[in-house]
Amino acid sequence: MEPVTAPPLSPTDRSRVRRHRDRQRGDRAELHAVLDEALVAHLGLVVDGEPVVLPTLHARVGEVLYLHGSSGAASLRGGEPVCVTVTLLDGLVYARRWFTHSANYRSAVVRGHARRVTDPDEHLAALRSLVAAVAPGQEEYAAAPSRKELAATAVVAVDLDEASVKVRTGPPGDGDAVAEGDGRWAGVVALETRVAGVTTCPALPAGTPVPGHVPAVGDAL
Amino acid sequence: MEPVTAPPLSPTDRSRVRRHRDRQRGDRAELHAVLDEALVAHLGLVVDGEPVVLPTLHARVGEVLYLHGSSGAASLRGGEPVCVTVTLLDGLVYARRWFTHSANYRSAVVRGHARRVTDPDEHLAALRSLVAAVAPGQEEYAAAPSRKELAATAVVAVDLDEASVKVRTGPPGDGDAVAEGDGRWAGVVALETRVAGVTTCPALPAGTPVPGHVPAVGDAL
Repeated sequence: MEPVTAPPLSPTDRSRVRRHRDRQRGDRAELHAVLDEALVAHLGLVVDGEPVVLPTLHARVGEVLYLHGSSGAASLRGGEPVCVTVTLLDGLVYARRWFTHSANYRSAVVRGHARRVTDPDEHLAALRSLVAAVAPGQEEYAAAPSRKELAATAVVAVDLDEASVKVRTGPPGDGDAVAEGDGRWAGVVALETRVAGVTTCPALPAGTPVPGHVPAVGDAL
Repeated sequence: MEPVTAPPLSPTDRSRVRRHRDRQRGDRAELHAVLDEALVAHLGLVVDGEPVVLPTLHARVGEVLYLHGSSGAASLRGGEPVCVTVTLLDGLVYARRWFTHSANYRSAVVRGHARRVTDPDEHLAALRSLVAAVAPGQEEYAAAPSRKELAATAVVAVDLDEASVKVRTGPPGDGDAVAEGDGRWAGVVALETRVAGVTTCPALPAGTPVPGHVPAVGDAL
């Protein structure tokens, strides 16, 4: 068998990272990981010649990124250029100098054109993925959409043909300053997103058990 | 004394929330709170007629939003239309139906024009605010920039003249479904960002004490 070679993240020059090129990653798996871990994406559009950026839920299926049709995606007819960016903030980099402060992060910038999802099977599968992306298990537990609900929920797709991934990890970059004996502490404050509480809908009887697929207090997401 | 009336968030129609108008907030204090709490902003630009969205650090000083000049802001000459969006994801809304799943969030969308900060005093003050925004206390503890570092760190300002704030809180919107006796659990999984670890720079001697202004493991940010 021929080895399967994943396509590069982008064939275009404009998606080449210009600042901090050492932070650019070229693995498609890394793109997938960043998109899959992020709970929120930021969708960029051009409206009347000016940029608009709106938060949206997203889900990746293979090499396609789906965006929930509420938010800005609702205004997309299809064919418009879009940019979808997700950012995972992994840590804050405390340095010895203002200048060398930074953040540890993983970000993905996807550029492409919006495609309205009209095929009924793809539409349903995309909605299932959108539910599973933010609330895994709910795609089985909760009720699938009625025909009316389906019609009321637009989904936009963007092919993952052109993307860039940028990652910063590790300690502050001014470790050399230690030799100068300035004596200041420096390091990394790592961050995580955790479940702070689980509140049952007040319309349900008190004590209604929480199903096992729902994350519990303290779980990292 | 006359009461001080804050200006409205936006005088323009295009910043009026169209979807879920009940989620729009009009308080300038709410705009400030969202911008101040968020650690990352997403900057939208138009480049060659297409949208580009890049993550960036930001800081608010009064009615001005400053963006760190690395990231996309570096390519701004000044005068370009920009959109800066921040999103705080407060919770995931588990509903009885796919259709009614949602997220609890606070988001701010700021539209304006980029202004390169050239005044030396404003430049230094903006950098101080950018350090303080992500690493409070470091603006005093860490060394201020040298003249060379200052010259190498562009800052972009956006006036907070036109903005919208959108907030969703509370339980799933399909509580009525309970009356139909479908019996499914529904509720809200609240999220928070916490410190997962504090790692001292490996260039420092082991056991170097961590200063008190650095957040500790478990602190919510």
